[in-house]
Amino acid sequence: MKIFTFDTTLRDGTQGEAVSFSVDDKLVIAQKLDELGIDYIEGGWPGSNPRDKEFFARARELRLRHSKLTAFGSTRFARNTVAQDPNVRQLLEAGVPAVSIFGKSWDLHVHRALGITLDENLALISETVRHLKEHGKEVVYDAEHFFDGYNANPDYALKTLDAAKLAAADVLCLCDTNGGMIPARLVEIVAEVRKRFDGILGIHTHNDSDCAVANTIAAVEQGVTHVQGCFNGYGERCGNANLCSIIANLELKLGHTTIGPEKLQHLSTVARFIAELANLPVRGDQPYVGRSAFAHKGGIHVSAVLKDSATYEHIRPDAVGNRQRVLLSDLSGRGNILYKLKQHGLMDRLDEKAHRELLERIKHLEFLGYELEAAEGTFELLVREVLHPGLNLFDVVSYEVTTRSPSGKDSQTFASVTVKAKDGIHSATASGHGPVNALDLCLRQCLSQLYPAISSVRLTDYKVRVLDSKKGTAAKVRVLIEWSDHKRSWATVGVSDNVISASWHALVDAIRLELMRALEKDDTIERVVEDYCWGV
Amino acid sequence: MKIFTFDTTLRDGTQGEAVSFSVDDKLVIAQKLDELGIDYIEGGWPGSNPRDKEFFARARELRLRHSKLTAFGSTRFARNTVAQDPNVRQLLEAGVPAVSIFGKSWDLHVHRALGITLDENLALISETVRHLKEHGKEVVYDAEHFFDGYNANPDYALKTLDAAKLAAADVLCLCDTNGGMIPARLVEIVAEVRKRFDGILGIHTHNDSDCAVANTIAAVEQGVTHVQGCFNGYGERCGNANLCSIIANLELKLGHTTIGPEKLQHLSTVARFIAELANLPVRGDQPYVGRSAFAHKGGIHVSAVLKDSATYEHIRPDAVGNRQRVLLSDLSGRGNILYKLKQHGLMDRLDEKAHRELLERIKHLEFLGYELEAAEGTFELLVREVLHPGLNLFDVVSYEVTTRSPSGKDSQTFASVTVKAKDGIHSATASGHGPVNALDLCLRQCLSQLYPAISSVRLTDYKVRVLDSKKGTAAKVRVLIEWSDHKRSWATVGVSDNVISASWHALVDAIRLELMRALEKDDTIERVVEDYCWGV
Repeated sequence: MKIFTFDTTLRDGTQGEAVSFSVDDKLVIAQKLDELGIDYIEGGWPGSNPRDKEFFARARELRLRHSKLTAFGSTRFARNTVAQDPNVRQLLEAGVPAVSIFGKSWDLHVHRALGITLDENLALISETVRHLKEHGKEVVYDAEHFFDGYNANPDYALKTLDAAKLAAADVLCLCDTNGGMIPARLVEIVAEVRKRFDGILGIHTHNDSDCAVANTIAAVEQGVTHVQGCFNGYGERCGNANLCSIIANLELKLGHTTIGPEKLQHLSTVARFIAELANLPVRGDQPYVGRSAFAHKGGIHVSAVLKDSATYEHIRPDAVGNRQRVLLSDLSGRGNILYKLKQHGLMDRLDEKAHRELLERIKHLEFLGYELEAAEGTFELLVREVLHPGLNLFDVVSYEVTTRSPSGKDSQTFASVTVKAKDGIHSATASGHGPVNALDLCLRQCLSQLYPAISSVRLTDYKVRVLDSKKGTAAKVRVLIEWSDHKRSWATVGVSDNVISASWHALVDAIRLELMRALEKDDTIERVVEDYCWGV
Repeated sequence: MKIFTFDTTLRDGTQGEAVSFSVDDKLVIAQKLDELGIDYIEGGWPGSNPRDKEFFARARELRLRHSKLTAFGSTRFARNTVAQDPNVRQLLEAGVPAVSIFGKSWDLHVHRALGITLDENLALISETVRHLKEHGKEVVYDAEHFFDGYNANPDYALKTLDAAKLAAADVLCLCDTNGGMIPARLVEIVAEVRKRFDGILGIHTHNDSDCAVANTIAAVEQGVTHVQGCFNGYGERCGNANLCSIIANLELKLGHTTIGPEKLQHLSTVARFIAELANLPVRGDQPYVGRSAFAHKGGIHVSAVLKDSATYEHIRPDAVGNRQRVLLSDLSGRGNILYKLKQHGLMDRLDEKAHRELLERIKHLEFLGYELEAAEGTFELLVREVLHPGLNLFDVVSYEVTTRSPSGKDSQTFASVTVKAKDGIHSATASGHGPVNALDLCLRQCLSQLYPAISSVRLTDYKVRVLDSKKGTAAKVRVLIEWSDHKRSWATVGVSDNVISASWHALVDAIRLELMRALEKDDTIERVVEDYCWGV
C-alpha cells in the first residue's frame, strides 16, 4: 500500500539541541528531499520567526518535482478571529499548497497552556481548518498530545478530531508529542480512532520511550497511511521518529510503498548529506544508514558473513545505499585486509617479506594507539609504501615551531622545517595562523621545487583526542586530520604525548600520500582502500 | 511482576565499533552494575580472548552483593566431546555461578556456518547444557537467531529449544541476533513459544530495525521475564537493546519491578559513568538519561513547561536521575540564566551595570564561537567575575612555547610565561610533554608563591574542533579542556585561529577559576552553575 511520507526535519528537527540550519541549508535540503521522493516537506513555521518566513519567500524559486512544500502553524489564537489572526495569515501568505496546523487534544493543555474552555478550543480548531480549506489549502491537522489527551479524557480527544474532520481536514494526524507511548497502548488507541474515522490518518511520534519508530510502524499496521518524522531522528529532547528507519522498515519489512526501491538506494547518501549540513556526524550505529550498521567485528561473525552475508545482516546493505564493513580491530581483521588485497590482485605484488612487514606495521601502529579504521589516508600510505619498498620521497631533518604572545594577548606562530630529498637539503620558514598551518606552509615550500605536483589539498577538520586521561596534561593524544581535494576526502592520524608532534606526523603522512598519489596513478590501491575504508 | 535484568555491556557491548574496555574498566563497571541491582552481569567470553579470561580471574576479588556474574560461550565444537571442549572447560574454570551459552536455531547457520547436520546441532545443544548443569551452573540458553530460524523453519527452531529445555536449561532466551524484527511479528512468535514452554523465557534483541527496545517490551507483554541488553545501547552494528530504556519503560510505563524505584534514580549516573569509561560521550538525545532528554528549546514549550512540566515531559526527570534544562540558544535562554541567578539570590548582589555586563559578555562570547553550554567552568568564571568586579588575580604579560625536533624524530617542548600579580612580576620556564603541559607547568610555577592554594587539578580531556572548515589550516578552532579535582569535573573553552592560543585561553580560565574558588568559598555560585550546566 502507498504510505505518504511527511518530513519535518526543517521544522520539528530544528528543535533538537544541536540542530541548526541556515536558510540556504534549508533550501538545499528541500531540493534533496524532493529528489528522494518525499511526499510532504514541512519547511518551517512562518509565523514564529523571520528565518522561516524568509525560507518560504525564497522557496518560491525552488522547482520541486514531487514534494508538496508545507507550512506549519497553530490554530488561531483565542483572542483573534481567524481572519485577523497573524499566524493564520502568514500560513496563507507562505504560498505553499499544503499547511499543517496543530490544535490541542489534551484537556490539561486547554486549561493550563491556553487557559480557555474545552468548547472554545473546539471552535479554534474547526474555524482554523475551515478557513484554510476555504483558501484552497490541503490541510494536515496535527492533533497535538493526542495519546496523552485520549488517556486523560477520551471523549474530548475524539471530539477535537471530529471538529477538524467536520471542517474538512484532509489528514488527521495523531501526535505523541511527549514521546512517552509504548506500542501496545498506542495500537489500542489508533484502532479506536480508525473505527470512527474514515479518510487518511497520520502518525507523528517522538522518541522519549525509545519506541518512536516502532510506534509509527504499529500505527501503520492499524491502517494509518501518513507518517511524519525527521531525517536522522533529529528533534527536541530525544528526537522525532527517525524517518530513515521508518521508510526502510515500511519498504523492506512490511512491503509498503513510500519512496520506492530505486530511490531507497539513495537513503544513506541523503541522510549523510543532511547531517553534513547540520554539522553533526551521522551516528555510527544509526540503523540502516550508519557507518557501523553493517560492520562486523567479532571473529565468528566475520567468518560467517564472508561465507554468507545473510548470516549476520538483516537486509542487503545496498538496498539502502550502505555497505558492509569488516573491522580491523584484531587478527581476523588484519586477515581481512589481506583478503581484500588479494581480491584486487595486489597480493601478487607483495612478496612474503612485504606481506609480513605490512602486518607488523599495522600491529605496531595499533599498539601505539593509532586507529586506522578512521584514517584511511594513513592506511593507503602504508599499502603504497610496502608496494614500493625502495621509494623514499623525503626525510625530515628537523622542525621547530614557536607560538609567542609578547603582549599576553595576540599571538604569532613561526615554524621552520628542514628536509632532505634526492636533490639535497631544503629549509623553509613561515609564519602561520597556528602551528599546523605554519608547519604545513614550510613543508610544502621545502618540497615544491622538487615536486611541483604538490597540490592545494586543504585541511577540512582537525580532531584531538586524549588517549590516557589519567596522566593529565602529560597524556598521550591522537590527532586526526581530515583533508579534501574537492573530489574526495581522507584522514591521516598521528599519535604522541605531544599534540604538536602528533599533528606533525599526521601532516607528514598526508604530504607523503599526496606525492605518492601524484607520482603513481595506481587506482587499484584506491579501490582497495575505498573498499575497506569509507570516506569521511 | 519481577523482570530479571541481564546486562551484556561487558560482552556483547564490546562488539560495538567504538567500544573497548580494559580489564580494570570491566571490574569497576561490574561493581557499579551490582550496586544498581542488575540481576546478571555477563562479563565476557573466557574462551575467546585473554582479556576476558583475565577478567574472570580477577573478578574473584569482587564482592558483589546482588548480581550473578555470568560467563558466555558457545555450545561445544562439533569435533570435540563436551568434556574435552576447551571453550566449555573455560566456562567452568571462570568460577562464576551462571553461564550463558549460545546455540544455533536457524537451519541456514547449522548448514552454512557450522557445516553439520540438524541432528548433530541438537546434540551439541543438549550435551553442552547438560554438562554445565551437572557441574552446578545456572544455565541461560541463548537461542541465537531464534526469530530468523523460526521464520525459516519453525519446527526446527522449536526443537532446538526442546533440546535445551530437556537438558534442564534455566532460561530459554530468544535472540533477534540480526536485529531485523518488527514487533508485530516478534509478538506472534513469542506467543507461540510461550504456549509450548513453561519456565523462564528471555529476550535478547539488536537495533538494526530501530525497534530493539519496543521488541523487548513487546516480548515482556507476552510473558517473557528475563531481558538482556547493554547500557547506552552499545553493541555490534546498530547496537544491542538499550538496557537503560528497557529498565525505565518496565518500571515507569508498565509497572514491573526490575531494579526498583529507588535505584532507578541512579540510572543516569551509571549510564554516564559507563560512557566515561568507554570514552564515548552519552548521546545527548538518548531517551531517559541523555543530557537533552528533558531539554526545551522552543519558546512555546519553554513557557508551558515552566507552568507545568507534564505538558512536555513524559515522566519526572528525577525518577531516572536526570534533570530538566532550558536551552540558552536565544534571548529567552539568557533570560533564563538571570532567572536562575535571581532564584538563588545572586541577582540582588548584581547592580544594573554588572547585570548588563554579564549579558553582553555572554552574547559576545557566543558570537566568537564559544559554547558556554558545554563549558560550565568558563560560565562559572564569568559569574564570579561580575560579582567581584575589582578582583584581578593576575595579568598575563607574555608567553611563548616552542616544539622542536632537531632530529626529525623525537620532539621537545619548552615554554616560558611571564605574569604580573599584586606582588610583582613572575617568570617561569619549563619543558613539558607538549605545549599545553609546558604552559600549564609555567603558569602554576609563576603563581604558586603568591597563591599556595593552587591545587593539583588535572586535565582529563582535551578536545579540538574546527569552526570554519572552509579556511583550511587557517581555520578558527575551539578548544575545550576538561578538568577534574577528583570530586567534580568541569570544562573551560578557548577560541582562536591558533590552536595554541585557544588552548592558552582555556588554560588561563581554568587557573583563574581554581584560584577564585579557593579564595572565596561561595557555594551559592556553584549551585547556580550546577543548576544551569551539567557536569561532564
